[in-house]
Amino acid sequence: MMSDRITLVEVGPRDGLQNEPKPVSTAIKVELVDRLTDAGLPVIEAGAFVSPKWVPQMAGSDEVFAGITRDPSVDYPALVPNLRGLEAAQRANLKTIAIFLSASETFSQRNINCSIAKSYERVQPVVAAAQEAGIAVRAYISCVIGCPYEGAIPTKAVAAVAEHLVGMGIRELSLGDTIGVGTPGTIRPMLKTVRSAVGDEITLAGHYHDTYGQALSNILASLEDGIRVFDSSVAGLGGCPYAPGAGGNVPTEDVVYMLSDMGFEFGVDLAKLVDIGHWICRVIDRSNGSRVTRAMLATRTEP
Amino acid sequence: MMSDRITLVEVGPRDGLQNEPKPVSTAIKVELVDRLTDAGLPVIEAGAFVSPKWVPQMAGSDEVFAGITRDPSVDYPALVPNLRGLEAAQRANLKTIAIFLSASETFSQRNINCSIAKSYERVQPVVAAAQEAGIAVRAYISCVIGCPYEGAIPTKAVAAVAEHLVGMGIRELSLGDTIGVGTPGTIRPMLKTVRSAVGDEITLAGHYHDTYGQALSNILASLEDGIRVFDSSVAGLGGCPYAPGAGGNVPTEDVVYMLSDMGFEFGVDLAKLVDIGHWICRVIDRSNGSRVTRAMLATRTEP
Repeated sequence: MMSDRITLVEVGPRDGLQNEPKPVSTAIKVELVDRLTDAGLPVIEAGAFVSPKWVPQMAGSDEVFAGITRDPSVDYPALVPNLRGLEAAQRANLKTIAIFLSASETFSQRNINCSIAKSYERVQPVVAAAQEAGIAVRAYISCVIGCPYEGAIPTKAVAAVAEHLVGMGIRELSLGDTIGVGTPGTIRPMLKTVRSAVGDEITLAGHYHDTYGQALSNILASLEDGIRVFDSSVAGLGGCPYAPGAGGNVPTEDVVYMLSDMGFEFGVDLAKLVDIGHWICRVIDRSNGSRVTRAMLATRTEP
Repeated sequence: MMSDRITLVEVGPRDGLQNEPKPVSTAIKVELVDRLTDAGLPVIEAGAFVSPKWVPQMAGSDEVFAGITRDPSVDYPALVPNLRGLEAAQRANLKTIAIFLSASETFSQRNINCSIAKSYERVQPVVAAAQEAGIAVRAYISCVIGCPYEGAIPTKAVAAVAEHLVGMGIRELSLGDTIGVGTPGTIRPMLKTVRSAVGDEITLAGHYHDTYGQALSNILASLEDGIRVFDSSVAGLGGCPYAPGAGGNVPTEDVVYMLSDMGFEFGVDLAKLVDIGHWICRVIDRSNGSRVTRAMLATRTEP
């Protein structure tokens, strides 16, 4: 029944490391991306062309893109906030860039320092120039379920942002439950409202944080609603707004474990992913967010 | 669509504490059960009438049952392995007892020291005597997906045990993914095979461990297959066969959070559950397995 192909967008090297307190060297970032390529991931968000003053974790993204060994079949997007970032992405020969907006007015103000309306104005020239240059644009919409400042976000607010972006010509929207409060009870109505607003031709991706442990359930519910693209992060890197171990992004390993067992095709090597997550967590001295990894490593080291 | 009632069977005081390394006093057990009653849980497995030589964690279950304040609308079962245990359950005026078998031949041998066939012989007189005394019997079947010794367990093996127990007159079967390896890809075929074998009149309960982080997804998939009874454990107490924090039983808090948000009725107070889990984890010096609790407590203590 559900045997068609899933695309995982690995966001560990960008969304993950950007939100980890400990910055890592360019060499480690290059090794991380290369190992993720080797594990078979089809899309690896590998950096961000943002000001290192604001986001020191993403400093040196140009060197990362220069240093990685690119598989021609793999897409390596970067987050790009402005035209200057787009120029850097062009110099790095990227096929895809990602832009970031929020469905929450307050989160937009506090996270990117402008209103939602103003964020449309900011991204519009970037999107137009990227299209002119033949570069695809993926848009993140954050706070699609809840906002740390506003609480519940109405599905209509998410659909309004989605419609606006589709109006600019964007074809893929990543819907982020940034604080991980969603359950199938809220994810499904949100997806339905957004789908109605943008139509069937637009790719919707699920970007679910695991803060409340609900991410895999939300992926399962989304699958049943026809979603086939999911963002995940090796070892659950990134986005820990709360206590250590409370979980940020959904761990790629846990998604691959579940969906492979359900018969979906990936071409992703779980054993390699487990090793990569174990390695990077030791490098940045972080607990591993993947339950699958913890269980598998415990079994491996048994006598 | 799915607005009917769910029954949660709280197994923390028994399946949970029985599998924790640190034994707790009778006074703490009584407090735990009383607080779970106060939180609104309809079924609380409160002890086991087993030999304290084999299971020191369950010593004093008679005192626990004597010490708790029973809500007449709540069921307080105990695990009972033999007629001697049943007599203790009768002295404690229990409405329900639980028995334990395995769908894995090797697990049965190693865990209860007899073959599956022999385990039928052992439980049969207990079940008959309980029925004679008007005491309901709930049967746990362990290793319904995988076994730590045998690997994957065929669905037919689970169905065979289920049929045998139903033949004895048992009306509720708790299907345990003891090592937590199941996903919706394996849980659903197992449920289908067991349902076909036992018919629609038998209550099937999902008892899913969270070792691989799949428990909530498995509950969601089971819901869609009509399951309405789930076992869970406050703070995820118990069943940590692997690394600390890898998770044992699915945390009651996380189940309540998901299913409440999906519109199911519980009558369970999530805030009280969070407090109970936080308290008992401090008492036994264990990390809290509930993501919901970790996220909620972090939010609570924010300025």
